[in-house]
Amino acid sequence: MIDQLIQKIEEKQNPTVVGLDPDLSYIPAHIKEEAYGKYGKTPQGAAEAFYLFNKEIIDEVADLIPAVKPQIAMYEQWGAFGIDAYIRTIAYAKAKGLVIIGDIKRGDIASTAQAYSKGHIGRVTVEEENHQIYQSDFITVNPYMGYDSIEPYLQDCKNYQKGLFVLVKTSNPSGSQLQDLDLASGEKLYEKVGKLVSEWGEPFIGQFGYSSIGAVVGATYPQQGKKLREQLPHTFFLVPGYGAQGGTAQDLAGCFDKAGRGAIVNSSRGIIAAYKQPKYVNQFTLEEFAQASRAAVIHMKKDLEGVRS
Amino acid sequence: MIDQLIQKIEEKQNPTVVGLDPDLSYIPAHIKEEAYGKYGKTPQGAAEAFYLFNKEIIDEVADLIPAVKPQIAMYEQWGAFGIDAYIRTIAYAKAKGLVIIGDIKRGDIASTAQAYSKGHIGRVTVEEENHQIYQSDFITVNPYMGYDSIEPYLQDCKNYQKGLFVLVKTSNPSGSQLQDLDLASGEKLYEKVGKLVSEWGEPFIGQFGYSSIGAVVGATYPQQGKKLREQLPHTFFLVPGYGAQGGTAQDLAGCFDKAGRGAIVNSSRGIIAAYKQPKYVNQFTLEEFAQASRAAVIHMKKDLEGVRS
Repeated sequence: MIDQLIQKIEEKQNPTVVGLDPDLSYIPAHIKEEAYGKYGKTPQGAAEAFYLFNKEIIDEVADLIPAVKPQIAMYEQWGAFGIDAYIRTIAYAKAKGLVIIGDIKRGDIASTAQAYSKGHIGRVTVEEENHQIYQSDFITVNPYMGYDSIEPYLQDCKNYQKGLFVLVKTSNPSGSQLQDLDLASGEKLYEKVGKLVSEWGEPFIGQFGYSSIGAVVGATYPQQGKKLREQLPHTFFLVPGYGAQGGTAQDLAGCFDKAGRGAIVNSSRGIIAAYKQPKYVNQFTLEEFAQASRAAVIHMKKDLEGVRS
Repeated sequence: MIDQLIQKIEEKQNPTVVGLDPDLSYIPAHIKEEAYGKYGKTPQGAAEAFYLFNKEIIDEVADLIPAVKPQIAMYEQWGAFGIDAYIRTIAYAKAKGLVIIGDIKRGDIASTAQAYSKGHIGRVTVEEENHQIYQSDFITVNPYMGYDSIEPYLQDCKNYQKGLFVLVKTSNPSGSQLQDLDLASGEKLYEKVGKLVSEWGEPFIGQFGYSSIGAVVGATYPQQGKKLREQLPHTFFLVPGYGAQGGTAQDLAGCFDKAGRGAIVNSSRGIIAAYKQPKYVNQFTLEEFAQASRAAVIHMKKDLEGVRS
């Protein structure tokens, strides 16, 4: 699956993944009205508004980007209706040829991990019939419970050509609290986790030298990103934290290799709520919100070009 | 919320939480037939079978236990139908007076954690109207991303009298891979995490001296459980790993304090699939599967009595 992602990045010449993490405050009134008109000002209406909002953004940016990353929490908060909107968002983006990174950050004991894995990247079975439920290509997972909590996903990655991004060095300020702890061995905890991810990913290395088992490495920690890039030459990075969280293109330059590969950079709010930014607010009407997202994607693409050459 | 849980444990004289983690292989044919009759041999049918199965077990054991712990992964694998079954299971158990521990093990950056928190233990808001979605009393969370990934839950714990169980020392074999790493400070990683959980929980200590911010401590690591009990006198433990995962009552004895308080012990398969065990298989018919669960709860209660006195 990593080969497919890298090919799409090369094809679009753009290592950007758009984070589909809607919030009701991002959604223009006309979209909300359409959704509430169908389902009322209810959790179901809110979930429908998320789907309609995503749909317009996907339509406007699909030709420019390789992948989208829906954050399941935003949908899960609306209950079953939200999960339905999450599934429909993935199906819509997939039909437009985009790679799907399901940002679920799950982590649990093996029997439980197997249920998550079957649902999100594998197949569930009801009386000998298989079903695809979420249809993600990659999912994010949490390493705190160790290898046996990751292994069930690896099986499905193998069986269905899927991939993972394991949390290594996250973009949030408190990420350091555990991840930067000094181990007796002389390493930081996140470096140890990075090495484990690299080991777990060895059987999954593809034609570009990168494994389908990647790592989450935040743009907000430039030195650590650069060091991890050197320590983990076969581990592809999913890089959150660009834009709204404060990471700049310069900050994440070290996450790319010399060929300009090795990372895909996420932006969520900076793209999906672009129409609210001072620089776009006079350029686009509320009805043109998705065109503002398109302008923001083009801007980000150019910004990243500067650090990949 | 911890006071309410402890009171229910005292009232029932039983520190047992029943893990509602169904699998299609646990569900007797007559329940599956009823569900498939309504929705076909589909993910929707499977989700309905889970709900019907849970309902019968809850009916049989509610008078004996303080709490249930549905594992969301098992439901999430069926998509929106599964989430609906998860929500209905919680509502049904709540109506029977049980405390709900939503086993979701989420962990993400603050804005995302807020969405999980609002959905699972707080309120979501659509156009100034609040809605309760999942209605858990406690949820489990993952500490890998540090304090700012936990803080949004603490707000809702305060606002709505809810609680958390943070993963500290998990019951699975690979739990040790990260959690037992030696830190330069001389502690193990899980001990450091335990201390953080204890700090985060300080403002939430109730009338019995325990905080609503608890810790997950596996029954499969008896020495560590005992040590953590001593190090964290105000931290209540959710103890998985008893029974099917190999932990015995003797193994988890150290998780209780001298008054026999301080922990609640989970059993999932050992109770919900009890009718398949050799000791119950001839005693109950398939239609009486939930009575086998009741017998297993009584057996477990007695088993735990021996280590709480």
